[in-house]
Amino acid sequence: MKNYITLSDIESLDELINEALQLKKENSVPTLGKGKTLGMLFFNPSLRTRLSTEKAAKLLGMEVISMNVDKDGWALEFEDGAVMDSNKAEHIKEAAAVLSQYCDIIAVRAFPGLEDKEKDEAETVLNSFKKYASVPVINLESATGHPLQALTDAITITETKDKDRPKVVLTWAPHPKALPQSVPNSFVEVMQKMNVDLVIANPVGYDLNPEITKKTAVTHNQAEALKDADFVYVKSWSSYEQYGKVLKTDREWTLTKDKLGNSNSPKVMHCLPVRRNVVIADEVLDSQDSLVIQQAGNRTYAAQAVLKRLLESK
Amino acid sequence: MKNYITLSDIESLDELINEALQLKKENSVPTLGKGKTLGMLFFNPSLRTRLSTEKAAKLLGMEVISMNVDKDGWALEFEDGAVMDSNKAEHIKEAAAVLSQYCDIIAVRAFPGLEDKEKDEAETVLNSFKKYASVPVINLESATGHPLQALTDAITITETKDKDRPKVVLTWAPHPKALPQSVPNSFVEVMQKMNVDLVIANPVGYDLNPEITKKTAVTHNQAEALKDADFVYVKSWSSYEQYGKVLKTDREWTLTKDKLGNSNSPKVMHCLPVRRNVVIADEVLDSQDSLVIQQAGNRTYAAQAVLKRLLESK
Amino acid sequence: MKNYITLSDIESLDELINEALQLKKENSVPTLGKGKTLGMLFFNPSLRTRLSTEKAAKLLGMEVISMNVDKDGWALEFEDGAVMDSNKAEHIKEAAAVLSQYCDIIAVRAFPGLEDKEKDEAETVLNSFKKYASVPVINLESATGHPLQALTDAITITETKDKDRPKVVLTWAPHPKALPQSVPNSFVEVMQKMNVDLVIANPVGYDLNPEITKKTAVTHNQAEALKDADFVYVKSWSSYEQYGKVLKTDREWTLTKDKLGNSNSPKVMHCLPVRRNVVIADEVLDSQDSLVIQQAGNRTYAAQAVLKRLLESK
Repeated sequence: MKNYITLSDIESLDELINEALQLKKENSVPTLGKGKTLGMLFFNPSLRTRLSTEKAAKLLGMEVISMNVDKDGWALEFEDGAVMDSNKAEHIKEAAAVLSQYCDIIAVRAFPGLEDKEKDEAETVLNSFKKYASVPVINLESATGHPLQALTDAITITETKDKDRPKVVLTWAPHPKALPQSVPNSFVEVMQKMNVDLVIANPVGYDLNPEITKKTAVTHNQAEALKDADFVYVKSWSSYEQYGKVLKTDREWTLTKDKLGNSNSPKVMHCLPVRRNVVIADEVLDSQDSLVIQQAGNRTYAAQAVLKRLLESK
Repeated sequence: MKNYITLSDIESLDELINEALQLKKENSVPTLGKGKTLGMLFFNPSLRTRLSTEKAAKLLGMEVISMNVDKDGWALEFEDGAVMDSNKAEHIKEAAAVLSQYCDIIAVRAFPGLEDKEKDEAETVLNSFKKYASVPVINLESATGHPLQALTDAITITETKDKDRPKVVLTWAPHPKALPQSVPNSFVEVMQKMNVDLVIANPVGYDLNPEITKKTAVTHNQAEALKDADFVYVKSWSSYEQYGKVLKTDREWTLTKDKLGNSNSPKVMHCLPVRRNVVIADEVLDSQDSLVIQQAGNRTYAAQAVLKRLLESK
Repeated sequence: MKNYITLSDIESLDELINEALQLKKENSVPTLGKGKTLGMLFFNPSLRTRLSTEKAAKLLGMEVISMNVDKDGWALEFEDGAVMDSNKAEHIKEAAAVLSQYCDIIAVRAFPGLEDKEKDEAETVLNSFKKYASVPVINLESATGHPLQALTDAITITETKDKDRPKVVLTWAPHPKALPQSVPNSFVEVMQKMNVDLVIANPVGYDLNPEITKKTAVTHNQAEALKDADFVYVKSWSSYEQYGKVLKTDREWTLTKDKLGNSNSPKVMHCLPVRRNVVIADEVLDSQDSLVIQQAGNRTYAAQAVLKRLLESK
């Protein structure tokens, strides 16, 4: 059987029925499972991160418990000394301590509001869990960073590169919504630790936090940056200077085949999900040079490596 | 202990407390689990299908990851070449390819809209997953078919029948809502492959797709159809001719004990959930002739057989 | 590695990348898992109960399937003989019988409406599951009781007490919302079975159901009750006499350090979540005398003991 979309996918109905009845007769024996538990808390939606981290944990034999904090309406109080007489039902002090009773590792996703730079940079949610939890905490993408994605990107470049010191270009792209800087921030940080020639290309007004970019080359000329690139990492982000704002809505910076045409056929990366023909053109995503699916696949192994280390360190 | 509804269910509190403290002292040893993953995507609600398929997968040792696509608001683009600048965040090309990185089998539920026959019959969601996924895909009920239910029904009739060629009647029933034709479609298809005498009974205007019913007898006289039936499969569906419409709202076709009285006490089947005293009368559902719970139980083994085949074929 | 909050948590990036690539190369072998299934149905939100019960089940090797009945909009009919032509899609008769096909134990949470005392005390949801399910049922907090919490509290007092017969005070506390009496009801019931000197303190109008409190001492003087207490169990509940009403909104009964000052430093308990500085003051919760986190941790072992007994009895 290759698929089970319609009944015509069944090769022999008799055999399949007998198979089912045979299975029904077999008794299953209970086994006493023993293990560690990963608790995943999502203050924001997640697909890839949820699936890959859950898979990674299970590949290590862990149990996984997920909570959609955003949907379950579990309003947490983060302020010290608060008189909790309004809508916040639980203080982070109890929440983190209690979760530490049930989970051996806690993983948290908490996006920025993109309205108050100082507040976002305080990383209140993640840092509060770190402060009050008695078990290790994993960042599943926070206000200012996405280190699991960055590790994935590093893995992907390492297994793909065909020269010692490849040229890696991080290029901004347009997007209908204001997006966090967390992915580009962490990508820049991880590339700075690797033996690569890193260039960041973005329009005027879109320079990332200079405390992160540091001495990394930044240009406002996309064409110049793409020249001789070995890897092109495409990502949209909102303005850091005019915090959280979308300053540019045209498609001048959309990555097209045309723009890659004169270079040495670089590999194209993106963390996904990607808006086709807005961020990257179909012709690029559907070409052999796209690494986006391989990248997504590597999320599992990045998470697995991190979880393994955390378990070994306990 | 039989239940744990109130404290009076505890036989000895002391013993139970000691039991708990003893358990607290025991250390659990982590085991490195290894396995295959079933990803289940629900574009519509599910109870029986979700539970039975999850149970089946776990009985086979698989890990299961479920996503409520409808609730998680993960809007997918299915159109080729779309410029994704509105609310669709991800294209099915990436979605299916990425899920194939994390899952060894992908199962999808996607109901019809019941407004546009051509669109429903295109089975866009399921067929897109089939096209772009690199792993097997399972239909958890689509716009026009429900093959896991049909396999269950075939299993149930096979293990219950007491003659070589039983008479099986599929009879329409009233329902307050417009329902898909997917269950009756697949039931007809699976019965056509079995050694049964199949008759379909439905009111005028409710004839199923003739490309599915083919040469199967169709009558608009319920009483005549029920005569000498061995199995009566009850199900409501909306009109195929006046696509998606409810044409008949009275209870003339409700299955009552009275209607079965003169026949040879046939077994009564339904896929559940069933509206009592609208689709089938209490007296029938509560009688020994009802197979509905046995049917529901068989969902597990049907799913298990399908999953086993898919795993063996890889 | 201690945490994975930022990239700076990685000790050696090279090693971590190599670790990930090594993991990617390893093949995972499928194991055919066999086991029992716990089905958890939540008609109301849950955090601690969900996590601790799920963890307990998994520590016993069970598979766990959770359904958020409240969110999934699975409207059940509980009335016998109902003509189901409105919004209720499934009768409890089928629901409970079907779940019994997939689950070896069913656990249910169903809070009171706090508007109709008679209706709440009928415990329709839980009792219907008990009546129609063919497998054991666990109460995950119902309209009038929370026996898993009570067992936890009994375990906690047992492992903490330093005298044969400690004085245990259950004291009411203010809260912005009207809360069920289920936790105090079950706490009183479990304490009545233990060798403790139990006193209940609550404002006038907040006396619990006399059929539960029976001969247990009830005072409306908090200070007097707290004198020489060994354990102080703090909990808010709505009025039983003026059913479901909040009669007192000031903080006269908030548990502060001051109120415990003249006694022998009693241990303070609460089932969580707790509104800080409304129910209990920061200075008490943050002191060495608070047992609230230990209590939450014991939820796992309470649930595990109950599940174990249920499995052994089958």
